[in-house]
Amino acid sequence: MLINCVAYQDGVKLADLPTEEISDYLQRPECFIWVALRDATDAELEKMQEEFGLHDLVVEDARHGHQRPKIEEYNDSLFVAMHMVDVVDADLEVGEVSIFVGRNFILSIRNRSKQDFLGVRERCEREPELLRLGSGFVLYALMDAVVDRYFPVIDDLESQLEAIEEHIFDKGAVKTNFEQLYELKRKVVVLKHAVAPLMEATGKLHGGRVPPICATTQEYFRDVHDHLTRINATIEAMRDTISTAILVCQSTVSIEQNAINKQLAAWAAIFAIATVFTGIWGMNFQRMPELQWDYGYPVALLIIMAVCGVLYLRFKRSDWL
Amino acid sequence: MLINCVAYQDGVKLADLPTEEISDYLQRPECFIWVALRDATDAELEKMQEEFGLHDLVVEDARHGHQRPKIEEYNDSLFVAMHMVDVVDADLEVGEVSIFVGRNFILSIRNRSKQDFLGVRERCEREPELLRLGSGFVLYALMDAVVDRYFPVIDDLESQLEAIEEHIFDKGAVKTNFEQLYELKRKVVVLKHAVAPLMEATGKLHGGRVPPICATTQEYFRDVHDHLTRINATIEAMRDTISTAILVCQSTVSIEQNAINKQLAAWAAIFAIATVFTGIWGMNFQRMPELQWDYGYPVALLIIMAVCGVLYLRFKRSDWL
Amino acid sequence: MLINCVAYQDGVKLADLPTEEISDYLQRPECFIWVALRDATDAELEKMQEEFGLHDLVVEDARHGHQRPKIEEYNDSLFVAMHMVDVVDADLEVGEVSIFVGRNFILSIRNRSKQDFLGVRERCEREPELLRLGSGFVLYALMDAVVDRYFPVIDDLESQLEAIEEHIFDKGAVKTNFEQLYELKRKVVVLKHAVAPLMEATGKLHGGRVPPICATTQEYFRDVHDHLTRINATIEAMRDTISTAILVCQSTVSIEQNAINKQLAAWAAIFAIATVFTGIWGMNFQRMPELQWDYGYPVALLIIMAVCGVLYLRFKRSDWL
Amino acid sequence: MLINCVAYQDGVKLADLPTEEISDYLQRPECFIWVALRDATDAELEKMQEEFGLHDLVVEDARHGHQRPKIEEYNDSLFVAMHMVDVVDADLEVGEVSIFVGRNFILSIRNRSKQDFLGVRERCEREPELLRLGSGFVLYALMDAVVDRYFPVIDDLESQLEAIEEHIFDKGAVKTNFEQLYELKRKVVVLKHAVAPLMEATGKLHGGRVPPICATTQEYFRDVHDHLTRINATIEAMRDTISTAILVCQSTVSIEQNAINKQLAAWAAIFAIATVFTGIWGMNFQRMPELQWDYGYPVALLIIMAVCGVLYLRFKRSDWL
Amino acid sequence: MLINCVAYQDGVKLADLPTEEISDYLQRPECFIWVALRDATDAELEKMQEEFGLHDLVVEDARHGHQRPKIEEYNDSLFVAMHMVDVVDADLEVGEVSIFVGRNFILSIRNRSKQDFLGVRERCEREPELLRLGSGFVLYALMDAVVDRYFPVIDDLESQLEAIEEHIFDKGAVKTNFEQLYELKRKVVVLKHAVAPLMEATGKLHGGRVPPICATTQEYFRDVHDHLTRINATIEAMRDTISTAILVCQSTVSIEQNAINKQLAAWAAIFAIATVFTGIWGMNFQRMPELQWDYGYPVALLIIMAVCGVLYLRFKRSDWL
Repeated sequence: MLINCVAYQDGVKLADLPTEEISDYLQRPECFIWVALRDATDAELEKMQEEFGLHDLVVEDARHGHQRPKIEEYNDSLFVAMHMVDVVDADLEVGEVSIFVGRNFILSIRNRSKQDFLGVRERCEREPELLRLGSGFVLYALMDAVVDRYFPVIDDLESQLEAIEEHIFDKGAVKTNFEQLYELKRKVVVLKHAVAPLMEATGKLHGGRVPPICATTQEYFRDVHDHLTRINATIEAMRDTISTAILVCQSTVSIEQNAINKQLAAWAAIFAIATVFTGIWGMNFQRMPELQWDYGYPVALLIIMAVCGVLYLRFKRSDWL
Repeated sequence: MLINCVAYQDGVKLADLPTEEISDYLQRPECFIWVALRDATDAELEKMQEEFGLHDLVVEDARHGHQRPKIEEYNDSLFVAMHMVDVVDADLEVGEVSIFVGRNFILSIRNRSKQDFLGVRERCEREPELLRLGSGFVLYALMDAVVDRYFPVIDDLESQLEAIEEHIFDKGAVKTNFEQLYELKRKVVVLKHAVAPLMEATGKLHGGRVPPICATTQEYFRDVHDHLTRINATIEAMRDTISTAILVCQSTVSIEQNAINKQLAAWAAIFAIATVFTGIWGMNFQRMPELQWDYGYPVALLIIMAVCGVLYLRFKRSDWL
Repeated sequence: MLINCVAYQDGVKLADLPTEEISDYLQRPECFIWVALRDATDAELEKMQEEFGLHDLVVEDARHGHQRPKIEEYNDSLFVAMHMVDVVDADLEVGEVSIFVGRNFILSIRNRSKQDFLGVRERCEREPELLRLGSGFVLYALMDAVVDRYFPVIDDLESQLEAIEEHIFDKGAVKTNFEQLYELKRKVVVLKHAVAPLMEATGKLHGGRVPPICATTQEYFRDVHDHLTRINATIEAMRDTISTAILVCQSTVSIEQNAINKQLAAWAAIFAIATVFTGIWGMNFQRMPELQWDYGYPVALLIIMAVCGVLYLRFKRSDWL
Repeated sequence: MLINCVAYQDGVKLADLPTEEISDYLQRPECFIWVALRDATDAELEKMQEEFGLHDLVVEDARHGHQRPKIEEYNDSLFVAMHMVDVVDADLEVGEVSIFVGRNFILSIRNRSKQDFLGVRERCEREPELLRLGSGFVLYALMDAVVDRYFPVIDDLESQLEAIEEHIFDKGAVKTNFEQLYELKRKVVVLKHAVAPLMEATGKLHGGRVPPICATTQEYFRDVHDHLTRINATIEAMRDTISTAILVCQSTVSIEQNAINKQLAAWAAIFAIATVFTGIWGMNFQRMPELQWDYGYPVALLIIMAVCGVLYLRFKRSDWL
Repeated sequence: MLINCVAYQDGVKLADLPTEEISDYLQRPECFIWVALRDATDAELEKMQEEFGLHDLVVEDARHGHQRPKIEEYNDSLFVAMHMVDVVDADLEVGEVSIFVGRNFILSIRNRSKQDFLGVRERCEREPELLRLGSGFVLYALMDAVVDRYFPVIDDLESQLEAIEEHIFDKGAVKTNFEQLYELKRKVVVLKHAVAPLMEATGKLHGGRVPPICATTQEYFRDVHDHLTRINATIEAMRDTISTAILVCQSTVSIEQNAINKQLAAWAAIFAIATVFTGIWGMNFQRMPELQWDYGYPVALLIIMAVCGVLYLRFKRSDWL
């Protein structure tokens, strides 16, 4: 679905274009064309390929979707694929945006994501001196918008991890902790797959040899790269912490088991000794003088209770009960 | 077994050749020869070595089979070895294809695999303008066909992993989960051995210095490389997930054990206290007034049941039963 | 909050400047300006950006805070971000310092940290021959001050680890050990995030191609780099030791459990055999001659005690009790 | 012990030389000398050092033995150290071969290994056109012989691993599995130490800058390198599989423990309830009407058996027994 | 403390110098000065700095001690820091040696170690043709001496590991094994910290660009590097083995626990069934015909023993007892 198709000149909006006229405006070097599509149909993609003269392989990639984030150079144009990560009902949903950048055009196709780039366009139109920098700057603005939206996602994951960590040594919470850690790890992997390849690719847009389109805006791309590096470092730290947390959970299970076993052993001992005493006085020997005593029974009960009590206290003191 | 031996000119099929005439046609620079063998015998290999003038070491490699995927340059020709992975009865079977590529010929030898390349040849013959690009393009077409067949395999493995993950926290499924995870890990390793070395090798067919045969089709090889990178990333993610899943399974076992131990301890306590009571009233003291009471027995039974009941409820409440 | 704003000439203090005059003094190549701010407000930052002509992106970074340590080159100026780690009530607090360095100025902005750089300024003012080396040397002096303060932190963590290690094989301490190791690991990660990226960045300030500002003071930066490498190696060793320590703790739990199980089994056996004996002599068979014996009862008690004693000794000898 | 000392010319054997004449023949550029020693004494080594003019450090290395596999260049000569791995009584024994290669000589010293190189010499003498390629080819032939002998060793280890894997989920086999996995891991490490450094070193004998001796036989060394890479990949896969197998074994122990605990708990419950019933009817209350019933006893036995039976069936059904 | 301060010319000892004359002799290019200090005081260090004109930062490093092993170039001089590892009472003690090397001098400062370099000096003085190679060779001789002393240390650690491995599957030894493995791992880490950074640094003294001082003795430094690589490989293998050994120990604990649990369960069953039988015949039903039988009691005992015996044998056969 076409969202926008606008021609700019000197950073100022010239006109909303019908898609058929794109190729005409592309001939005019002083013009800059910015087209945005959403969940493009095959027909729309073919139209765009025709108007912009895009490479078969790239269009194929954009059509299939489910790509790794990447930045590819085709002659003097760039193809950028990024993941857009949304938090939907406590789960992560991954959409994609494919961006085709040429000397004087930019074409973005957004798939399966509710995030839009209207804010980017508005900001760019408000600041013509930036828009005048051309397709390199718009590419930066789009990438920056995508990357900026990773921050709340990672913050969300971090606060989930902290919530788990608060209960990490709680005995009862072990099973829930495991399930949540496993789920969290899964989400972190999803985010990592969005961030890590993009970080690697962005590293080639500043310093050293740089695609011509990005040459004048290198410092901006370094900033994007820096943000991605920061997110990536946080992700790595989270993975590390999750692994340790799983280890700790495992140990909590074992420690709890020890506690249970101790209680089991202690109570078994107490009851067993009482059973032995009652067994003794339940024997049928004819000569068991204490059985005839007037206070034999209460004394026996007292003895049994005393012995059990002593055991109980000893176990209590040695922290088994 | 010879499958095809065809000479092309200008992207159009010239003739089916008898193998003896290969060397003659190789002399004609305007011709392009494409030969396909399956499970080649030693005699066929020798014939091909003679006709195409192949290096001893490569032919040796192709004969022995069981090679790592690789791409080797010999003067102005290339030798490519790839694994073909088929899913046969829920198991992975690994076949091999060896491809010899020269300036104006391509020779593919397929071993122990039911996948064929007839589709590739048909598509190429239907599009002469691509076939005209020469041996580099045909090599791409063959590699693309092999790599494309990895996708359903990895999808299959991924859906197996998801099936396991659904039962990962089920108590009864632990043993089955272990067996399936172990089996899955084994398969992932098989696929990784097909993909990782090929990915590394393909990286040298685009960007930087490139074998002359592939020079004009670099962008196609970048596409293959990109697919391999994507598959490899998925494999790595699966390995990571499998490791975590095994950890989680281990913990599920421990958690289940805790639950069993708690039940054991609880029932032991309940029965033990009942035994103590019956033991007490089974003692043979002469003066045990309650034994003479009219309702001594039912009261005793009530007391025993009451004590056991209280214990049962306490355990129930503290979630041990 | 502005702390200092001083102009120097030939290593000697010229004057305390009002911030408005900074840009005037910057025009004089023989002057060197050193400004220090603490928890700067947006207004102060804007003022500084205006006076020093700083890049938008950097100022943005300094404003937001929570950056990764880094060193970035902007034309002929440098931007350095470092973490300042304080031990506050046995916890680590992370502040930040952003340093902007130009040919003849240095601007440091310290956020959320109680560490100040007054000592650095004093020492520099006392040694004009060093201050005369210019902004490169002052940058070194500031970085050195920050890095030197990592040493007591890591020493503190190391002595905590040693304290845990002393009790690592103690049975009772297992749970505390786990909690402390987990907490320690968390702190080590915090320190690692301060040190590792800075180490990487500092490596580019000596050897090979170096920013012009640091060219004459390369050996000093190599020293800083060396300190960071040392700290980083210690951190890595601690991480490794903590991992092993957690493993050992896990095993201590298991070993303790074995000991408990053995005791449980041993006492269960002893009491059970006593119960069996009392049960036998509690049976109601009419012909049980030993029941009529004069010393039947004491003999029975002796037999029971003897059997239990023998069992006890056997368990004692085989180390189960 | 000297095994062979032969001079060749144009690929044809000239004469068996006494060691004293080696240096004379070395002067004749058209000659090629190939000497083989086994478990050389110090005297023999000194003699060789004198005749061939070898570097002190290398001879020292060859004398001490126990070196890492390596390839070192000394001016225009090469020193190659390799491990020879034999399977002796199901254990791995590691011998060494040191090879000194000059422009027109090759000297191999074999230590602590029963593998010999007679086959290599025979094959070379049978094919003078290869021997004519000089010391580079002979070095290849020797290295190829050593590397080829790694294949049966790794096949052996792989089949051992497969044998373990077949029993990996067997309960009774756990302890044996552990011992065998540990032993297997040890062997894999031994093989890895033979292969990995050699692989790294061989990588420098083809492509890029290459020692002059190997220049004309680069493709052969690439083949050796390729074999080593394949073995190394198999080793890495085995290490990975062994680690997972150990994890699985650990879990099998835990799963078995759960099964035992369940049985223990179930039987304890069944016996305990029977004991409680007998305890009740063993109490000495005067008014226990059922004791007077004619069929009280058999009914009691039936009740006890019924209750135990019901319990037994319930445990059976829930898979605890 | 000054140990030696000697001037050499043409490899021959010229004179023992008082420290004041060092700077004079340094002026004479044909002289070579070799100074050795032990646990140098600040005064001695200052004196040396003055005489040799050493850089502030290096002297600072040497004063503080506790450095990472490293090799730093200062203009045309080198600074080398190494760890000296002694086995003292089965523990590792780490001393340090700092070596300053210039064109015609070498200054070594040894701290906290009982190892001395007298042997090195003697050997050098005995072989003037080597000493004549200058400061590069003496540096090699000192480094070689330090590195050679790592070998007995690692051999010691390896034999400790082997001693543990012999008992690795012993049940009783588990706790001791854990403690020893943990201790051993600690020592291995100490040695690794001495070896790994030095190995890395030594790699820059041969091949490629090399400090001028070491240019003529590159092959010697390659030898040192090779030794360090070998030690490092052994260390890595030990770390790997220790990790596996800890895993195995953990499993041994679990396997032992299973054995104990089985015994516990078996004995519990045997005693429980005996208790049930005695309970039955201890019931007070009036009509229990077997109680009146003449041989009721011995038959009852026989039955009980028979049942227990059968159970015992079944457990024995299924390996639970």
